[in-house]
Amino acid sequence: MRSLLLLSVALLLVGAAPPKKKLLTPTDIVNDAPKSAWKTIPADDLVVMDLANGSRVVMQVAPQFAPVHVANIRALARGNYWDGATIYRVQDAYVVQWGQNDSEKGFPAGVIAKPPAEYTRPLKGLTIKALGSPDPYASGAGFVNGWPVAYSPKGNWANLAHCYGSVGVGRDLSPDTGTGGELYAAINPLRHLDRNIALVGRIIDGMGNLSSLPRGTEALGFYKDKSMYVPIVSVRLASSMPDGQRPTYEYMDTQSPSFAKYLKLRANRHDDFYIRPAGGVDLCNVNPPVRKKG
Amino acid sequence: MRSLLLLSVALLLVGAAPPKKKLLTPTDIVNDAPKSAWKTIPADDLVVMDLANGSRVVMQVAPQFAPVHVANIRALARGNYWDGATIYRVQDAYVVQWGQNDSEKGFPAGVIAKPPAEYTRPLKGLTIKALGSPDPYASGAGFVNGWPVAYSPKGNWANLAHCYGSVGVGRDLSPDTGTGGELYAAINPLRHLDRNIALVGRIIDGMGNLSSLPRGTEALGFYKDKSMYVPIVSVRLASSMPDGQRPTYEYMDTQSPSFAKYLKLRANRHDDFYIRPAGGVDLCNVNPPVRKKG
Repeated sequence: MRSLLLLSVALLLVGAAPPKKKLLTPTDIVNDAPKSAWKTIPADDLVVMDLANGSRVVMQVAPQFAPVHVANIRALARGNYWDGATIYRVQDAYVVQWGQNDSEKGFPAGVIAKPPAEYTRPLKGLTIKALGSPDPYASGAGFVNGWPVAYSPKGNWANLAHCYGSVGVGRDLSPDTGTGGELYAAINPLRHLDRNIALVGRIIDGMGNLSSLPRGTEALGFYKDKSMYVPIVSVRLASSMPDGQRPTYEYMDTQSPSFAKYLKLRANRHDDFYIRPAGGVDLCNVNPPVRKKG
Repeated sequence: MRSLLLLSVALLLVGAAPPKKKLLTPTDIVNDAPKSAWKTIPADDLVVMDLANGSRVVMQVAPQFAPVHVANIRALARGNYWDGATIYRVQDAYVVQWGQNDSEKGFPAGVIAKPPAEYTRPLKGLTIKALGSPDPYASGAGFVNGWPVAYSPKGNWANLAHCYGSVGVGRDLSPDTGTGGELYAAINPLRHLDRNIALVGRIIDGMGNLSSLPRGTEALGFYKDKSMYVPIVSVRLASSMPDGQRPTYEYMDTQSPSFAKYLKLRANRHDDFYIRPAGGVDLCNVNPPVRKKG
């Protein structure tokens, strides 16, 4: 008595065959988008983490929003800082966190020890595609170069939003901002952390390899038993990898007509499974399309 | 170089010792709430699922919102329908689903084969504590007896919201509404499904045992290899369990002064870790307090 529950969700999978129906789905828009709607992510913005359990996780960094922290992350990856590090914390509905927490491994050259609080940035220089739905956390919400952002025209700030897969920098109490050595990925939207911590990127591939890890039983989800730690084999910038091994990804230009159509349909699902289009959508439930190339 | 990342989150853990500081946290409110702020969940509203991997998951059902589907679920539990069933689908950032999908096991007596579409209900009879923040999916959002709901005064409807841990009824394409035999738990907020499917409850304990399961690799997250299926040993109503084994839970009355304070702080974190209170909160990021008794 298998149920077809949420059949139409299949159509959201990037790369699925176009369905033969009149009512367009968001995935139809993705599949039909012209080449001009896609932008390749620079290899220097891709951070590839290989885990000892055989899985791979790929992060895109956001130099436009946290340039000093991102420069740190690049220097840490180039210096092989995370080789031998571990995932040591998984707090349910919260974060997966990794780094050299049990080690005194020093930072490679070029790492800024005390980065500025890159929690927001000025609006100047940003072209925002508005979400078109209200946001509980800011007067404005939308997308910049594929990234979900919240913003305030009055306050002249914009911030990356804590959505599923967002990556931020672990820190102690303020005014510490963290170096980037300890990172976390959000396994649930955590918008209350917006503007209180430095977000530096997002997981664009393999997020399920992090969110499916066993939850830690200590306070804050730290693993009690160190045998549960997940060793990290290596973390590399794609730009440092040999040509044949370097993965490439592209994202849908959030200023493109294709994205405008996609966004409209994400707020108004009307294909077979849906009876009542919502007429709105949460910033973290849009999921701007990103896909692997080649 | 362990980071204290998100230290103050520890204080959110229900039952943690009260911190010694002036600025109150949401957990302070929970810990200090008088007995009158708590309501015991009826044993007939608790569904206890024991998995073969040794973990337990407890669901609270919502007869106020989906009475026919909830009556089905009670009849299915009383008839031991799910004994020997499996968890056969885990789609990343989407749902965990279970039932008798590979079996032709018949329904026990009392199960309604074609329940009505209990996707919304009229407002009459509901006392709503307003969220106080805008919602992208409805003109109103708030809480009823501990449940997160969206609503429309103009349309005279209210619906349970798809938040992390919400449990819904698998169905095929409309007008099928599902019997309740196949259930899913949302492992990410899925508000676009609101008003398009019957939500029947939420996981109040052990949700991490579901959300940490390996993701399925088939379309929609179905497990390809049946050896990955997670067998269900038993699903029982707490009301059917012997006195000594019956777990009991209580929720914070969302009409209580304690909840009003808690909600205000969830929208305005101002304790040590936080620099900028948001001034708003998402319906699915409030997490109305529920705790085990005894």
